Amino acid sequence: VIDLNTKKIGILGAGQLGRMFALASANLGIHPYFLDKQSDFPAGLISHQITEGDFTNYDDVLSFGLDKDILTIEIENVNTDALLTLEEKGVQIYPQANIIELIKDKGKQKQFYKENHFPSSKFILYENKIEVLKDLENGSIYFPFVQKLRTEGYDGKGVLVVKSQADSDQLFDKPSVIEELVDIDKELAVIVARNKKGETNSFPVVEMVFDPIANLVDYLKYPANLQNQIKEKCRSIADQMAQKIDLIGILAIEFFLTKSGELLINEMAPRTHNSGHFSMDACITSQFEQHLRAICDLPLGSTEANTPCIMLNILGPNDYVGPAKYPWLPEILKIKGVKPHIYGKKTSKPYRKLGHINIIHQNDLSLVTNLNKVKSIIKNET
Amino acid sequence: VIDLNTKKIGILGAGQLGRMFALASANLGIHPYFLDKQSDFPAGLISHQITEGDFTNYDDVLSFGLDKDILTIEIENVNTDALLTLEEKGVQIYPQANIIELIKDKGKQKQFYKENHFPSSKFILYENKIEVLKDLENGSIYFPFVQKLRTEGYDGKGVLVVKSQADSDQLFDKPSVIEELVDIDKELAVIVARNKKGETNSFPVVEMVFDPIANLVDYLKYPANLQNQIKEKCRSIADQMAQKIDLIGILAIEFFLTKSGELLINEMAPRTHNSGHFSMDACITSQFEQHLRAICDLPLGSTEANTPCIMLNILGPNDYVGPAKYPWLPEILKIKGVKPHIYGKKTSKPYRKLGHINIIHQNDLSLVTNLNKVKSIIKNET
Repeated sequence: VIDLNTKKIGILGAGQLGRMFALASANLGIHPYFLDKQSDFPAGLISHQITEGDFTNYDDVLSFGLDKDILTIEIENVNTDALLTLEEKGVQIYPQANIIELIKDKGKQKQFYKENHFPSSKFILYENKIEVLKDLENGSIYFPFVQKLRTEGYDGKGVLVVKSQADSDQLFDKPSVIEELVDIDKELAVIVARNKKGETNSFPVVEMVFDPIANLVDYLKYPANLQNQIKEKCRSIADQMAQKIDLIGILAIEFFLTKSGELLINEMAPRTHNSGHFSMDACITSQFEQHLRAICDLPLGSTEANTPCIMLNILGPNDYVGPAKYPWLPEILKIKGVKPHIYGKKTSKPYRKLGHINIIHQNDLSLVTNLNKVKSIIKNET
Repeated sequence: VIDLNTKKIGILGAGQLGRMFALASANLGIHPYFLDKQSDFPAGLISHQITEGDFTNYDDVLSFGLDKDILTIEIENVNTDALLTLEEKGVQIYPQANIIELIKDKGKQKQFYKENHFPSSKFILYENKIEVLKDLENGSIYFPFVQKLRTEGYDGKGVLVVKSQADSDQLFDKPSVIEELVDIDKELAVIVARNKKGETNSFPVVEMVFDPIANLVDYLKYPANLQNQIKEKCRSIADQMAQKIDLIGILAIEFFLTKSGELLINEMAPRTHNSGHFSMDACITSQFEQHLRAICDLPLGSTEANTPCIMLNILGPNDYVGPAKYPWLPEILKIKGVKPHIYGKKTSKPYRKLGHINIIHQNDLSLVTNLNKVKSIIKNET
């Protein structure tokens, strides 16, 4: 166990995930350090301890990490070479650098699932567009399929659904994974944490509902409308995965449930995740507190939920770039159980995540009614 | 309704109440400004917007307040003359300066209760010790009684229980209130909020259990073990009080329930209060969010509780002055539903409030079991 009073905890990234991590940490009297490009990023607004720098740059990560006791991340796209060096120098990196390396490459991720018999869709790896076109011609792959960039994808970017020849012009000309297009019944997600002692604890399964245009989660709901057996299977896979990769930290796993009832891992992220935001207002322990507990070798908290919850992302309007505004905020606060989380971003951009709203209610039907009220207020006042 | 994006909210005091106010405000994308003596006070650790100064000083309060849109407090002992000037200049002061003036003087408070027929114990006002001794001699007052300083009392300081002639040497020689010593069955508290529209909403009644040595709350419990009729009476008095003083903001009222079943107001504070901390983990809306909503003319939130809760103050050990330490933290985190709130104070002093712990559990009996576990861990590891 680290001495929470004197040990320094650093986090790569000062966006909303870092901000919410800091808010949860403050309750335990802990004030983390941040590395990100600008000190007025969301976490910087509530922390004095932000270093301006680039977390994809070897030197920046190295010099930021050298005086920290524990280093963690809010995004996978960080300089893992620097993290490997820091690990050698005795800095505790959680999740470990090799886990971040594995997960930030969607190609390696898929190979890992296959080698370790975790259920996932069929795939082939490609170096460039020409290779893909060749395989399309010779029939090794066929429409429809999904192309994902191996690295740099985020929030639905770097993912292309290729339905017919007409779409093939847009194919990425970079190292990519081609996956079969799965006939999806539901998208599900589970967050699991594991500490040094090897204890794991997963949060309840949530169901994700997507906005088809933005290719981002529209809202997610706990409890998922799902057989218990499938929920248990999701959580059991999450536990096994945490053990298999020897995780210290937190891991989000997104699943497809196919129309034929098959459960497939879509992808995973070794960090707090959008799909875990419901835990902030619905569970005894939030994912952010759980992350802190896991990396500090503290006992994991109870993930039990006290209430059903719907989580709605607040995205920048698709026709506006400028100062972020929330004119609908007073109106939605009239509704019982509406808990906004605004990230403090200065600028709104199309589909940019500006915040999220947790809606809690003991009654499932009222939950959906209140969601629709919130959406209509936001639509009318934006 | 104020524009939450651009309006500046200032708060006098950067202690734990200001800190928790800032944490709650951050969720709504709001970052308040602080005035207090040192920028490394609890709220300063999570805010860039702290001005070093003295909130009891006219000039400091005036210059801090001039560019703010809304000004509020975390403590009553502030310079109200400056607040009256700022009110004239159009700054919104909530609670209003006249309410703070009324409440920071325990003599005025008692007179107000009497004039407005709010139930409270009998009292006489004195200017100095000689007057008190004279009335003791001539039989106008008799042992036992309570002497309270009219101003500057805080956290049980400035209060003297005078049981016999032997105690009378210690009598305060300052303006004071002498109250009859009430035969107390229970001490109760209610927090009420009221906004500009005159809407009021009170939190559930809590029962306070005192540490007899420190004269500080040991723990408090929701739900109070009490007839519903008395709970309703507490909340109804709180609502009436908020209306009577035309409150905009939040008000904590502490009650005595006497052994003969009489309900008396002990005292009140026009701000967030120790007795409302349970709301942070037990209620849909915390007292800190409610405070923000009330002063920003936002709709008041639901005060409904989701779970029973015990709140335990963490006090500095009575034989130690030095860096604050929490060696028991990892151990108590093993217990389900234990939610610590550490304030980030650098130095521990005897009985100083360093934090509090909310313990939540659906089962009342487990709540007390877990409280005893927590207390014994803290005792053994301090």
